[in-house]
Amino acid sequence: MDEHLLIQKYFSDIGSAYLAERNVEVSVGDDSSILNLNSDLQYVNSIDTSIEDIHFLNSMSPRDIAYRSCAVALSDLAACGANPSWYSIALTFPEVEDIWLENFSLGLKDFSDEYKIPLVGGDTTKGKLSVTVQVMGEVEKEKALLRSGARENDLIYVSGIIGDAFLQLRELQKSQNQDTGFDAYLHPKAQIALGLELIDIANSAIDISDGLIQDLNLICKSSDVGAKVYLSMIPTSVEDKTLELINSGDDYQICFTASENNSTKIKHISERLGVPITEIGKITNSKELILLDYEGNKMELGSGYSHF
Amino acid sequence: MDEHLLIQKYFSDIGSAYLAERNVEVSVGDDSSILNLNSDLQYVNSIDTSIEDIHFLNSMSPRDIAYRSCAVALSDLAACGANPSWYSIALTFPEVEDIWLENFSLGLKDFSDEYKIPLVGGDTTKGKLSVTVQVMGEVEKEKALLRSGARENDLIYVSGIIGDAFLQLRELQKSQNQDTGFDAYLHPKAQIALGLELIDIANSAIDISDGLIQDLNLICKSSDVGAKVYLSMIPTSVEDKTLELINSGDDYQICFTASENNSTKIKHISERLGVPITEIGKITNSKELILLDYEGNKMELGSGYSHF
Repeated sequence: MDEHLLIQKYFSDIGSAYLAERNVEVSVGDDSSILNLNSDLQYVNSIDTSIEDIHFLNSMSPRDIAYRSCAVALSDLAACGANPSWYSIALTFPEVEDIWLENFSLGLKDFSDEYKIPLVGGDTTKGKLSVTVQVMGEVEKEKALLRSGARENDLIYVSGIIGDAFLQLRELQKSQNQDTGFDAYLHPKAQIALGLELIDIANSAIDISDGLIQDLNLICKSSDVGAKVYLSMIPTSVEDKTLELINSGDDYQICFTASENNSTKIKHISERLGVPITEIGKITNSKELILLDYEGNKMELGSGYSHF
Repeated sequence: MDEHLLIQKYFSDIGSAYLAERNVEVSVGDDSSILNLNSDLQYVNSIDTSIEDIHFLNSMSPRDIAYRSCAVALSDLAACGANPSWYSIALTFPEVEDIWLENFSLGLKDFSDEYKIPLVGGDTTKGKLSVTVQVMGEVEKEKALLRSGARENDLIYVSGIIGDAFLQLRELQKSQNQDTGFDAYLHPKAQIALGLELIDIANSAIDISDGLIQDLNLICKSSDVGAKVYLSMIPTSVEDKTLELINSGDDYQICFTASENNSTKIKHISERLGVPITEIGKITNSKELILLDYEGNKMELGSGYSHF
């Protein structure tokens, strides 16, 4: 099958209901996609690759692989407070298998429908399974949440429950039964609604896909500040809060900092969205990130997820 | 080395001289890139993956691999008549090797400097070498060159010399000496200047990276027309114009169609840019692409480059 037919068959109609509202003029099927954009806004672009056996298990269904790869990429936009506009995908896979591609395509449709954005273009190549997703979103001018805005005495918050994806991944590696109870790993949600609510409230934010502590440390470096984090305050679903649990990555949640004055607003956002938001510490002027254990002792920090 | 340091060291300063003129607000180093765009224009987006031993030889230098992967992606923008704005890159590579990464980074700089565009973001993952490049460009509203605009009696043109990359690839596969004479394969040029000149002149255009005949056929399908192409007229650097030579792909040239009234203008564009532009046939109303040999007989058409 040539690439043209393959794209027509499996990729030409993903989220096409949203093309008009997202101002897409030419979608899948030409050399490039043609988009209308708005000068009054800023645009937010991110790209993320998910690779078999590193970012997803090859025992996962193609539908879950597609959905997860896209949600993971979109999470970066959430952390910037952006509203998603559209996405494109570069898919590498070993051979053309109808059922596999049909199911993969369903995962893209799930994703498109959930975030109301169309697939506007892409590329297919032959090789070991790998999914690169590029997402574009929009944000009001100068309103994007960046890593660099944390200020001394900001409270540090994290969304969601940390470590569930890590625990589920461990279970999934042992079991072939992927039916229920694995949503944190298989179907991560990009916290788009939360990101949008945090505009004008958070001073800094980051997607903690590489591990809460490791990624919070990037906020500290970018903002030239330090942080004091209390292990006891980190929200987990199990009692044993190991460093591995809280810093292994795969939590597509947002860690952000905000002035104490905004704490009531943040509580209301959490209630309105039904997303847990937990205070875990405070930004300091020490330029060092310190994690304190239950006894108040400074813990040794390992690294989070390492790409190499 | 963690991803953050790696990106800082090798990817944080590529084409940064062009950030301001390309209206980039936040470049490499945050969760996403933040861009200012202009409502009076349309934006043109494309993504392309280059994989070791399929799209480039692993004997090539990292500098050539980087440059080629980017130019190949940009070629899609050229075929749309777009002016490039910026690019992002998702790089998968097996291990961190300083010299390799430094050289790869030089190839990106070559590319950035040639097209005056910055690298604004990306992702790095561990795995078999693969380079996915996303390029964004701009075009005046409704002016983009599409595959779908060819009209009956349009003349068909192609830029450049066809088949040189194919011949050079064959040589490169035999030889370790890559010093000179391999520019068509190692350093393809995206025909950006030509694409810009063809706005308001060409009725349709396509990047012929998968093979002249195969890609021209996509113009025919998208435009619901046919084409008559004369083998004798196809510009090659060798006398033996085999179907393999003219339709194997890797020619990052533009095939376009235009009314006969524009033939003098096209001649002048060719002279001004120093890019060969050759008439190779005519659009017909037959809905079939016919390639005629030197005796005027219809040739059997094989397929061009097949992705699978």
